[in-house]
Amino acid sequence: MTQTVEPDVEAAERPTDSPQARVDAWLSGFEESLRQRDLDRAVGMFAPTCFWRDLVAFSWNITTVEHRDGVRDLLAHTLEGTDPSGFTTSEPPEEAGGVTTAWITFETAVGRGRGLLRLTEEGAWTLLTTLYELTGHEEPAGAGRPMGAEHGAQRGRLSWRQRREAEDAAMGETTQPYVLVVGGGQGGIALGARLRQLGVPSVVVDDHPRPGDQWRGRYNSLCLHDPVWYDHLPYLKFPDNWPVFAPKDKIADWLESYTKVMEVPWWGGTRATHAAYDEDAGEWEVTLEREGRTLTLRPKHLVLATGMSGKPNLPNIPGMDVFAGEQHHSSRHPGPEAYAGKRVVVIGSNNSAFDICGALWEHDADVTMVQRSSTHIVKSATLMDIGLGDLYSERAVAAGVTTEKADLIFASLPYRIMHTFQIPLYDQMRERDRDFYDRMAAAGFELDWGEDGSGLFMKYLRRGSGYYIDVGAADLVADGKVKLARGEVDHLTESSVVLDDGTELPADLVVYATGYGSMNGWAADLISQEVADKVGKVWGLGSDTAKDPGPWEGEQRNMWKPTQQEALWFHGGNLHQSRHYSLYLALQLKARQVGIPTPVYRLAPVHHLS
Amino acid sequence: MTQTVEPDVEAAERPTDSPQARVDAWLSGFEESLRQRDLDRAVGMFAPTCFWRDLVAFSWNITTVEHRDGVRDLLAHTLEGTDPSGFTTSEPPEEAGGVTTAWITFETAVGRGRGLLRLTEEGAWTLLTTLYELTGHEEPAGAGRPMGAEHGAQRGRLSWRQRREAEDAAMGETTQPYVLVVGGGQGGIALGARLRQLGVPSVVVDDHPRPGDQWRGRYNSLCLHDPVWYDHLPYLKFPDNWPVFAPKDKIADWLESYTKVMEVPWWGGTRATHAAYDEDAGEWEVTLEREGRTLTLRPKHLVLATGMSGKPNLPNIPGMDVFAGEQHHSSRHPGPEAYAGKRVVVIGSNNSAFDICGALWEHDADVTMVQRSSTHIVKSATLMDIGLGDLYSERAVAAGVTTEKADLIFASLPYRIMHTFQIPLYDQMRERDRDFYDRMAAAGFELDWGEDGSGLFMKYLRRGSGYYIDVGAADLVADGKVKLARGEVDHLTESSVVLDDGTELPADLVVYATGYGSMNGWAADLISQEVADKVGKVWGLGSDTAKDPGPWEGEQRNMWKPTQQEALWFHGGNLHQSRHYSLYLALQLKARQVGIPTPVYRLAPVHHLS
Repeated sequence: MTQTVEPDVEAAERPTDSPQARVDAWLSGFEESLRQRDLDRAVGMFAPTCFWRDLVAFSWNITTVEHRDGVRDLLAHTLEGTDPSGFTTSEPPEEAGGVTTAWITFETAVGRGRGLLRLTEEGAWTLLTTLYELTGHEEPAGAGRPMGAEHGAQRGRLSWRQRREAEDAAMGETTQPYVLVVGGGQGGIALGARLRQLGVPSVVVDDHPRPGDQWRGRYNSLCLHDPVWYDHLPYLKFPDNWPVFAPKDKIADWLESYTKVMEVPWWGGTRATHAAYDEDAGEWEVTLEREGRTLTLRPKHLVLATGMSGKPNLPNIPGMDVFAGEQHHSSRHPGPEAYAGKRVVVIGSNNSAFDICGALWEHDADVTMVQRSSTHIVKSATLMDIGLGDLYSERAVAAGVTTEKADLIFASLPYRIMHTFQIPLYDQMRERDRDFYDRMAAAGFELDWGEDGSGLFMKYLRRGSGYYIDVGAADLVADGKVKLARGEVDHLTESSVVLDDGTELPADLVVYATGYGSMNGWAADLISQEVADKVGKVWGLGSDTAKDPGPWEGEQRNMWKPTQQEALWFHGGNLHQSRHYSLYLALQLKARQVGIPTPVYRLAPVHHLS
Repeated sequence: MTQTVEPDVEAAERPTDSPQARVDAWLSGFEESLRQRDLDRAVGMFAPTCFWRDLVAFSWNITTVEHRDGVRDLLAHTLEGTDPSGFTTSEPPEEAGGVTTAWITFETAVGRGRGLLRLTEEGAWTLLTTLYELTGHEEPAGAGRPMGAEHGAQRGRLSWRQRREAEDAAMGETTQPYVLVVGGGQGGIALGARLRQLGVPSVVVDDHPRPGDQWRGRYNSLCLHDPVWYDHLPYLKFPDNWPVFAPKDKIADWLESYTKVMEVPWWGGTRATHAAYDEDAGEWEVTLEREGRTLTLRPKHLVLATGMSGKPNLPNIPGMDVFAGEQHHSSRHPGPEAYAGKRVVVIGSNNSAFDICGALWEHDADVTMVQRSSTHIVKSATLMDIGLGDLYSERAVAAGVTTEKADLIFASLPYRIMHTFQIPLYDQMRERDRDFYDRMAAAGFELDWGEDGSGLFMKYLRRGSGYYIDVGAADLVADGKVKLARGEVDHLTESSVVLDDGTELPADLVVYATGYGSMNGWAADLISQEVADKVGKVWGLGSDTAKDPGPWEGEQRNMWKPTQQEALWFHGGNLHQSRHYSLYLALQLKARQVGIPTPVYRLAPVHHLS
């Protein structure tokens, strides 16, 4: 052992310099400075470059503040009401590469929180604080689970089934929901389950007859593009034998079972046709068509969970009225079965376009894909391994990274610097699948990796589009089985699609895989254009990249947090986001229901209408 | 520290005498003696008084051998074929009260096993060996889970739903099940789920339209009498918010969802009307009525999962043909709703009788319970705390006793001495609820605690009857709200029940809560009396107590193991037993399906016909 190493060994043995000691010292100093309302000292405990992300615990918002000025501002506005205390580690901190990482818990004036702290020599580099329950309003689970049976004999008591039936019959007649969730896909169901557990009277309404029908109605070969470890719903995990990529009918059946097991009040065959907010009464008036009957609900809060993709973008191309064949947006595509032997032109080259082209080819259609702009493609297995493997995989589970931990680790990475963590991963992916990308390029397909090379997940967060997770259809393009055309569509004739370079593509069917608009389009339809404009664009970070204009927002616009329209909320995203963020949305609603003060820190201003 | 303690401390520090060292030495010695086929040495490693319980791993049976002679006999017959190896501890052994307890794993010639070993100074006192998977036939779970999506484009491929539909359509037409499970309650469903995971082509048939209907059809206030921690099904646990005692409609919905999620091939509206075994073909011919259509299945194995309670015992009482009111067996009782203001006589004083009396009283019927013999009553909360709390409770879960561990600990207690562990628990219960028992006695109710004071679970294992888990109805008897009569029924008149002491009980309804026969009664109905007699009595241990005549059997008769009728099996029991023993039954069937030799050690002889 050399001289130079020995001092380090000694230092490591000195308990005052262990990761645990460093974190303990930081937490106690932070707590003390907060108790004394000593902002200078508290702010000084953060590194000059730092990010504090708060999910509802301090801010009653989903917000990230940056650097010491941001920390000061957050504390100046929220400290008095939050009155945090009891900061402690929940397991031994770990040190790697000069960063000490610690799982922490704490309490606020009204609830209990957990978080993740990363310390460098300069102080706190990243801090995540999240609220997970409201004191006195804990969910009935584990030792607090309901008894079920009511022991003892009582005349006139109702059974569980009778109580549920009575509750359902009364809803909208003699009782009103506190929350109405419009949209009963995975997002609405996950939120509905959380609201149910929190005892918030709610109804989730959906046009489809049964939970899961959104999946059932889609093309036959569809499977989830995200793997099972990423897709769990709250409370009830998929069993260990669940497929890595669940087939669409299987996930549909799961959602239906889940809705029943979690007792989510889910109204099928129900369409919300109009909503208006009565500011004086502090409630919405929502008109519904329920199985042929018109009724009105008066919820205090309205959540739109109608799909983060928003309303379909149908382009306005000259000749669409002349075209004699069939044409529809990808969201209306009925699947490939009826198109064997037909000539199909699919306009677009992202996820939907590839999925539809692949299924059409499998069913012997003559398919041409029209690529209008570059697309980012990642092979599913590669994405799963390199992109998600450390957090969401069998390997992660074996290493003790539960879904809940993975969600918090993910949430702890500040959006501002997330791309810097992503870029090296996508560099690895490009290297691993180099042959594949060469073949795609040789076939004339225009590839990209995001403007800054940060890949798929950043594209998802910024614009929710522009990529394809390859589950096999890309090879069809590389091999020429699905024909590729490049350019803008100039016009349609009676029987073809004509591109701007004059290429004419004969077509029996044209599929517009042309994406979706912002979710506030749903608000325009259901409420008014005025409210849609007041709320502004939904989704995106303000990264100043394509389809995500600046200024920087720091968080996804309008998602799971208060909006400029009082009592209007947006919920959605992939299964991971539905699971994780439904908790914070549910806690915000529960707090309002029981009259806990919820002063919102830094309600986001609106910079873009859509 | 005193002189007398110090030597012990030193001994504990000596690694050769640690629990781990003692267990390691025993396991390596045992393994070596087995490898050398040195029975004398192997047998000598057991204590003179010892119990080795084997679940399928060595014996291809469910069997307990006792003492050194028994161990020698088991090894003499099974060692060559089992060829066990790799005995090791799976976690650090623990020592308490002179007994060292160790979780172990091992391998056999065909599979992998786990078990529980208890060592005393004399050697092995109890040994549990269980098979949990067959090498090369592991269940597809965790890292081995199916992919779901088939990446790549293939023409003509079927989706998951299409494959399932095709499979269902072919079953019984172009394909045959390897196993037919008659009875689709929790037992058949749990077994069906395991067979599905093991890839054994199976069908579970049930008369009811939907899974769970067995529960739905029962009286309104029914809840499970066992708590949630005891009731999990295989693969998919109840969520943390599941009630302690699930209401019957909620457990019904769970069973329905579970059946779908686990893809159990469950045929509703299907009644098996006749079965005959063709010895030459080695298969059953089973006639089914399926939704109005007659069809024949030819499974290799037939499992009766029609309820461990067997067929209803309807007594033959003079005057039953004269009685002008309504009369039915408790299993046919439609619930209390129609009997407000009616005079009801319930004959019997066990679980069903109390449940029915309680519900009738709640619905304003005038109820009399006729107690014919003594009943063992335990209050539900007390049973849960003292009887199950160490193994199945939130406290057990918090202490690391998972359901799977609890099942194995329970399975490791030899039936021969189980009552000695039970008696002190029931002594505690009697003490805790002394006031309650005094009140019952004062009301004239005749109580017992089992012939040897060993209480409810031994009664359940021995005879499956003779007790009531009190969820409140006992107080109605104590308070005189439900009237109590004592004695045998002598006869019925047109309008009353007359007891042997001349007491006349006017009645509009008579409920015969008179219990059930042996499960081989189902075999008599479905197959033949000859086969029912060949198989003999089902359930019970041969304890030579009431309704469980000797000789001692060592295991429950005919349950989950080979019977005297080739290819006929019985499955059932409470949710705990359905969960745990379905594994061993499924492995026995899987081994036969894939041609693994399954020489059965000590097939139990038949001593009683019913």
